[in-house]
Formats: sequence, C-alpha cells, structure tokens
Amino acid sequence: MDRRGFNTALLASSVSGFFASPALAGLNSAGSAGLIIGMLVYSDMILLDLVGPLTVFSMLQANVRLIAKTAEPVRTDVGILVAPNSTFGAAPENLDVLFVPGGLKGTLSAMQDQPTLEFLKLVGKRSRFVTSVCTGSLLLGAAGLLRDYRATSHWYVRDQLPLMGATLQKDRVVQDRNRITAGGVTAGIDFGLTVVAALAGEEQAKRIQLLIEYNPKPPFSAGSPEEAGQALSEDVLRRRDGLIRQAAQVSRAAGARLGI
Amino acid sequence: MDRRGFNTALLASSVSGFFASPALAGLNSAGSAGLIIGMLVYSDMILLDLVGPLTVFSMLQANVRLIAKTAEPVRTDVGILVAPNSTFGAAPENLDVLFVPGGLKGTLSAMQDQPTLEFLKLVGKRSRFVTSVCTGSLLLGAAGLLRDYRATSHWYVRDQLPLMGATLQKDRVVQDRNRITAGGVTAGIDFGLTVVAALAGEEQAKRIQLLIEYNPKPPFSAGSPEEAGQALSEDVLRRRDGLIRQAAQVSRAAGARLGI
Repeated sequence: MDRRGFNTALLASSVSGFFASPALAGLNSAGSAGLIIGMLVYSDMILLDLVGPLTVFSMLQANVRLIAKTAEPVRTDVGILVAPNSTFGAAPENLDVLFVPGGLKGTLSAMQDQPTLEFLKLVGKRSRFVTSVCTGSLLLGAAGLLRDYRATSHWYVRDQLPLMGATLQKDRVVQDRNRITAGGVTAGIDFGLTVVAALAGEEQAKRIQLLIEYNPKPPFSAGSPEEAGQALSEDVLRRRDGLIRQAAQVSRAAGARLGI
Repeated sequence: MDRRGFNTALLASSVSGFFASPALAGLNSAGSAGLIIGMLVYSDMILLDLVGPLTVFSMLQANVRLIAKTAEPVRTDVGILVAPNSTFGAAPENLDVLFVPGGLKGTLSAMQDQPTLEFLKLVGKRSRFVTSVCTGSLLLGAAGLLRDYRATSHWYVRDQLPLMGATLQKDRVVQDRNRITAGGVTAGIDFGLTVVAALAGEEQAKRIQLLIEYNPKPPFSAGSPEEAGQALSEDVLRRRDGLIRQAAQVSRAAGARLGI
C-alpha cells in the first residue's frame, strides 16, 4: 500500500450476513432467512456497485458472502478496501444469488483471469439467480453465462454484450429467466429492490425502499446518453476511449473462446 | 474483531483523494482541483450514506479526507470497515465541504460524544459548506450547526430537527445559505450531485451523473411515507420505535445544552 502513497493502513473486517447489521435488524419476513447471497469482489471494482445492492440485501436475514479469489482485501475505485469473507475455494456451493459488480478497469482484468472465469462458470450453473450491476455483465458474459440471454450493462459498453452471445436490452434492470443484469453504478439500487422482490416478495422490497428512502430526485437530467445529449455523451466517451476500446478487444476474445 | 465473530481480518487503506481512483481519472475541469472535502466517519454509520457522495466527490480532483475521532477503522451497518485517513486533531483546518453521514444507532452515540461535537463545531465554523445525509443532520444539529437554518433528515426522525433550533423543510435536498442537508440514505446521490454543482458547476455535475448512469427507475413507489402509505410507514416506525424514541431524548437534551 505504501507504494501507492496512502497515509493510513487499517484493519477492516468483512460482512458476515445480517447480524453484522444490527441497525437494520428486525426487518425479516418469513421466507428470507436462510438465503445465501454470494457477491464477487475484485480489485478496481466500483464500491457503489457493491454497496447499493449490499445495503438492500443486508436488510434481509440473508447470509451475504463477499467472495474473492484470495483472502486479500480488494481495492475499490474510491480507495476503500473491501475484505472478502470467502474465497473461490471456500464459497458455498449453491447460492440463491450470484452477484457481480462492475468497474471497467477491474472488470477487464477479471475477464482475463482464468480462476475467476472458472469460478463464475461453476457457481453460475448452481445459482438460483445469476446477476450483475454495471460492467459486471461483461464478466458474466466472458464466463459464458449470458449466451442466449437478454442483458444490459453500463451504457458505454453495453453494445459489447452481443460479442459474447447476449442480446442487448437497453433497460435499467433486465430479467431474462434467472439472469438479472442492470445498468451502470447507481442502477444497483433499482436492481437490489428487484432481486429482493423476487426472493422475498414485493412487500419486503417496499419496506426496504422506505427504509433507505429511495425516492430519487436527481437535480439534473443527465443520467443517460439520451438525457445528457450528444455533446456530453461524446465527451465522456472520449475520456473513456482507451478503456472502452480495450473492453471491445477483451469481449471479442472472450466471445472467440466461447465459439461465438 | 475476533470477539465480534468475523471470519476474516484484512488490511484496508484509506481514501486520499482523486488519485486513489484511477478508473475515474481525467474528469477534472478547471476549478475543482485543490478542493478539500472532509467526510466524518463513525461507528455504525450507514456505508451507503458515505459511498453515494464519496463516489461523486471522487470524480472531482478533490482531496477527500475521511475524518474520525481516532485512527481506528470504523464499522459500518453492512459490516465493512472504513479506515479514516485523518483524525480530529490532524484534519485540515479549512474545508470546502464538511460532510456528516447518518445511521441512527451511530448518530445517537456521536451526538453524545463531546470530542465529536467539539470537532464539528470548530470545523463547521470554517467550512465553506456544512452538509449531511440521512440522520447526519441530527449530529450537525447537536453541534449547534443547524440553529436558525432550514434542514432535513431521514423521514422517520426529521421532526426532531426543531428540537435543536432548525426549521424542518421536507425536501430531498435542502440548501439554506451554506448548509446542505439531505433525506435518508439514497438521498446522498442527489445530494452529491447538488454539492458538485455548487463547487464545480452544473456541467461537471451532469458529466458525473452520466458516468454513474444516475437515471433512477425504482421498481416500486414506496420511497417516502406518502408513497408507501400508512400501513407500511407505521410498520417501519413500529420496528424502529426504540431508536426513534431514544433519538428524541438525545435531540431534546442537545437542544437544552444549546439553550433552545
């Protein structure tokens, strides 16, 4: 860490399910206890991609596992480290939800990491729901988990999903059978509530929505390329050009490996 | 940590501003470099209260400090620990933004902690903007920083703000002179974009909104007591009854100390 110039090192523990969250206790309804939710964590992921859904899932009496390749904490976009509480080898075999967050730089590394792809392939087959937020769907795609499924991703890379056999559907949250994928970063909150409704019913999802006061009022209308307009969208695409081109190469290579 | 039964300990580093966030680099516009944003972190805060605004602020070339009473990492509602990178004694003297997240259980402890109140009082006087999300405004109120200001908080405790001399305004984000307070948890994203616009202009705020694809589409309409309806709202109030009553006592005592 020192080589990256950070001032302070610190001990951080990891999520071990609902009981880590006493402030949110007492909200369980019948049927959500015993759920096992596995959330992949990896270096350079966007922390908000994880924390939106995690906050929502933490309000169920679910066993939430933060699963990484090794026990090492992973660095996120905002500099905060997240500790896994499970490794690929020690993860539960059957998940109610397999979740993959995004963060393009980290996603591209993970898409080229064989152990990560193997893990997702294996667990994806056995999970009740296979899900993602943001560029996480590119990683699901590279593991062959979105072939012949409708899916979405962050707006600036979603066009690449078909390179790995998925059909792009430009919606905030897209469900096709047991695959649930969502748009960029903040879509994780809409996504989390959608998944809770599927797992534990609408009443539970609405209760959580009220608790987190999810009554959004963006001060501007610039949250999609259509709303932001051409000039701003092109500006963002230009600033992200290198990563987006790299994503296309990596997605194409993944598609080739899948025989697409 | 062991006594709390967590499986894994980990090293986590802390935010040291934009350079911690290479994935988001290259988005600075003139005028946002050199900004110093101080975000209070404390035990039992809600991680999403912090990470919403932090994600937005990280996209400016600002110096973001996570400030706590001691250098110890603080536990959040979802079990993830956050490391401060500054302590009260070592915090920058003049902040562009002083920010306080919420999380009722933690907020109540902090409202009764003299060093925390002293720090906020001192730094609040010297900050360009004094801000909060969720129950963070109760803590600002207890430090005397909302007296004679319009403000808001999480819906289930916002009625208590007047106990500490504030005037309640029931909006998602409320600005009164240099005080900017917001509603519960997810309001932090609306809040963050509002603050960025104030610091660096609308164009910058819109660019960040597009990057985080903040184009919310809640699957249900239950994010406010009005939308959720009486039955669900009363259900949540009943489940939170103990903490809300305790908050009223603590707010009243704080008001008495302030001579209100």
